[in-house]
Amino acid sequence: MIRSLDARSGKLVAEVAQETTEAEVGAICERAAATAGALEDLGRSGRARMLDEMADALERRRAEVVALADRESALGETRLNGELTRTCTQLRFFGEVVNDGGYLEAIIDHARTTPAGPQPDLRRMLRPLGLTGVFGASNFPLAFSVPGGDTASALAAGCPVVVKAHDAHPATSLACAEALVEGAGRAGAPAGVVSLVFGEPAGVALVRHPATKAVGFTGSLAGGRYLFDLANGRPDPIPFYGELGALNSVVVSPGAAVGRSGEIAAGLAASFTLGVGQFCTKPGLVFLPRGAAGDQLLAALADAVRALRPGHMLTERIADGFASGTAALRRLPGVRVVAETGGVQVVAETGGVDLAGVTGQTNGGERAANGARAGWLGAPVLLEADASALTTPGSPLTDECFGPVTVVTRYGGTEQLLTMLADLPGALTGTIHAGEDEEAFARAVLGQFADRTGRLVWDGYPTGVAVTWAMHHGGPYPATTGPLHTSVGATAIRRWLRPLTFQNVPQQFLPEELRDEPAPGYLVPRRVDGRLELPAG
Amino acid sequence: MIRSLDARSGKLVAEVAQETTEAEVGAICERAAATAGALEDLGRSGRARMLDEMADALERRRAEVVALADRESALGETRLNGELTRTCTQLRFFGEVVNDGGYLEAIIDHARTTPAGPQPDLRRMLRPLGLTGVFGASNFPLAFSVPGGDTASALAAGCPVVVKAHDAHPATSLACAEALVEGAGRAGAPAGVVSLVFGEPAGVALVRHPATKAVGFTGSLAGGRYLFDLANGRPDPIPFYGELGALNSVVVSPGAAVGRSGEIAAGLAASFTLGVGQFCTKPGLVFLPRGAAGDQLLAALADAVRALRPGHMLTERIADGFASGTAALRRLPGVRVVAETGGVQVVAETGGVDLAGVTGQTNGGERAANGARAGWLGAPVLLEADASALTTPGSPLTDECFGPVTVVTRYGGTEQLLTMLADLPGALTGTIHAGEDEEAFARAVLGQFADRTGRLVWDGYPTGVAVTWAMHHGGPYPATTGPLHTSVGATAIRRWLRPLTFQNVPQQFLPEELRDEPAPGYLVPRRVDGRLELPAG
Repeated sequence: MIRSLDARSGKLVAEVAQETTEAEVGAICERAAATAGALEDLGRSGRARMLDEMADALERRRAEVVALADRESALGETRLNGELTRTCTQLRFFGEVVNDGGYLEAIIDHARTTPAGPQPDLRRMLRPLGLTGVFGASNFPLAFSVPGGDTASALAAGCPVVVKAHDAHPATSLACAEALVEGAGRAGAPAGVVSLVFGEPAGVALVRHPATKAVGFTGSLAGGRYLFDLANGRPDPIPFYGELGALNSVVVSPGAAVGRSGEIAAGLAASFTLGVGQFCTKPGLVFLPRGAAGDQLLAALADAVRALRPGHMLTERIADGFASGTAALRRLPGVRVVAETGGVQVVAETGGVDLAGVTGQTNGGERAANGARAGWLGAPVLLEADASALTTPGSPLTDECFGPVTVVTRYGGTEQLLTMLADLPGALTGTIHAGEDEEAFARAVLGQFADRTGRLVWDGYPTGVAVTWAMHHGGPYPATTGPLHTSVGATAIRRWLRPLTFQNVPQQFLPEELRDEPAPGYLVPRRVDGRLELPAG
Repeated sequence: MIRSLDARSGKLVAEVAQETTEAEVGAICERAAATAGALEDLGRSGRARMLDEMADALERRRAEVVALADRESALGETRLNGELTRTCTQLRFFGEVVNDGGYLEAIIDHARTTPAGPQPDLRRMLRPLGLTGVFGASNFPLAFSVPGGDTASALAAGCPVVVKAHDAHPATSLACAEALVEGAGRAGAPAGVVSLVFGEPAGVALVRHPATKAVGFTGSLAGGRYLFDLANGRPDPIPFYGELGALNSVVVSPGAAVGRSGEIAAGLAASFTLGVGQFCTKPGLVFLPRGAAGDQLLAALADAVRALRPGHMLTERIADGFASGTAALRRLPGVRVVAETGGVQVVAETGGVDLAGVTGQTNGGERAANGARAGWLGAPVLLEADASALTTPGSPLTDECFGPVTVVTRYGGTEQLLTMLADLPGALTGTIHAGEDEEAFARAVLGQFADRTGRLVWDGYPTGVAVTWAMHHGGPYPATTGPLHTSVGATAIRRWLRPLTFQNVPQQFLPEELRDEPAPGYLVPRRVDGRLELPAG
């Protein structure tokens, strides 16, 4: 049974659905795959209208969806209203991407005679890969879940979507799916273009189903790797785009530490505890210079952390993981607690989190009648690790710890810093704060980050991922399993498309965009005989 | 020991190299990976010059390379001279692609204020993935081997290359590698940008080595799948672009069978026996209409096949595979031999091929002193399969059989044809011959092929893959393991690149192509604030 819990109390609110059986997943996938033709027939402008209608439908249910998401995630209505706005903007944005048509990568080579002989007329364009499986993420119940970026980009590409709803927000997922289906209907698309399945066995069946042609996933390293292996182990392997976790290092230069310690301390504290630290772009490792300026920045950061309050985490499992993860880090040789927010005591033996409220007293973990704990609090923790602890091979310090914790390491000189950066695993982002006269330092750090991350952030913080044309949200493993592609931004659509080339095919059988004289509305950027051409106007 | 054999006699000509040990592979990979910075420093124009120099160096060794390749492959000097020309053209073509710069997918979003708040300056560009492993193919000792498309596109992208030389042409591989290294040197690039390793254990070590960031492979389904699984099973999985085999169906419409039976029969016979049937685009399945026109075309095809001669196959293993593969097909219920070229008798019990020469007599397989058979002949075979035999689940009729064999199936009506096409596995190509008044038929067949192949060929034959901007050489599994990408044509470069986004990064740290005012020579197509812009001039 799929249950909707109140994330603040841990109490059962409703039984939302049964786990979808393997047979049901099969029927849902068949029905979804059968809508591919309808999505193609809608055309690019029709799919853009569909995405607009979906955004409108979601807006109409704003109050309901935000209330459900808040109840199931405890992320707060302010954040969730913002996330819903972002989600609607994202749906509409992919409509713009589709209308622009550049994403089709249209190429035409007219027939010609070469020294090696005649060459046929060749015309290439991208086309939808087929049914897409999407795994919603716990930490963004809207923007990375049912109506999120994977769904929006796959539908834009022309791929039907089956979403495995995250167990943490099933009621939100259901309401969002209803909105998307309503929007599809208003645009003349069949209901089957978006469907939901529930429960982990259904997720496995979705990845395994022959009709599924690609999978988008945002979640944990363990779960993502398991599904990645399943996708690659199929008789016919399929692309699996998993975003699995990242450390997201931040380097503060000696100059920046001197000049902006207060500002950086405040910014870092806000960034690593945003959404109770449950962001895939959370800064998990901070490199500060040794010496007085670094000391001062660390002290300011510690003060900022002490001034925070514990927050409700998304699920019991996540709260437990945070508790056991930070407990393990604390126990490592060379690791010290610099500061922690009061009000929560970690009970390492059980791996559980006990509630203390704001009084500072602990209790035994008040449990609701249904057996759930009364709430899952996470209290921000600031750790400091010796460089030697960080560079110990296999150290858990280089794994993501989901939740409001960050680890500070001090560096003596640029060489030591660069050596430490070189040993870090792939990440989504790398951030540097540097002064204007530290160009060599900045260049060296950016060079290390360029090889190991997908986004370089200058004088800022990695949390906050704008949905734009140029955004890249991905990185070398384990940040993502598909390093060539992004899960946020316009180019996320590329994941659901594959090329098809037409050789000497007569005009009437070509997609309109590849014809010699496309009808109005079908003019797209094209590379013709090697030269890129823009549509007039 | 890696041995160079004469493919016509099977005799040992030279011992070319020792198998590269795992330790040696490690050292070669480290050395190769260390050249990435030099490739980046060369810049796009420098890498284009390097590719030109490599082509020039290969041209200078034309006589030597063609003679070695002919000895090791028996493909003939005419074909191999053409292949060398194509290979040099391909190297230079990727220089053009790199100079154009569109492949960088440069995108700039200037900072702006949105209803959801301020949005930073974001600039995205593709950058090299890192050391690339390339597995040379047996059937194109030049164009898909050491100096082939994978190597050319990876170097163009800025990725060092380590090639696992195919055991079928080690001496050719060595000569080609020397030419590439010479070209690199003339362009100021270090020798380590291209290296060779020998032997299957070395191939495994190459896929497993931590420095290897992607792999390109052209070869068999079994070998490719094994390495694909290895690449995905790494602690840090890497992209594996395998081209593993395809059936490449050809449909002849009722009208085309009436109007062009002689021409189509001649074209098909030439296509499926080109290079002794050892093309990945060989047409392996031909759908002819039932009735008199189809009968006539089949008879003409049979005549054409009988008029052919056996050819020397690439290796003993391939000749054995062809013999046992065709023997298995012949034994299937519902399969008949329509025609075969005389002069070779298949000895199914041993899986071997006995030589008969052109006299029609068989002999016991003359063996050279070193134990190799005196030659590996493949004789063209034309089979016919009942529709029911083809549609039996798991039928070997839907697997590629490498060598000069093709299978004809007859269809009664369009519905039956479409049903059969719908059950076929993914392929590189789908070909249709149709008359002008058969638009509905053609549309339906093209629709089926569009879902299952990477290239639609109209009134032609799938063999012959032009290296152009619009070419796509790929398709759904098992045609390729990376359906989003091609191994031939300009866009093959995309396989070795990943995005990197710069957030608020000052101008002096940006790649020249992403700056507000790029220096001359760095102007590339860019999408700026959502609008694609072409460089002036």
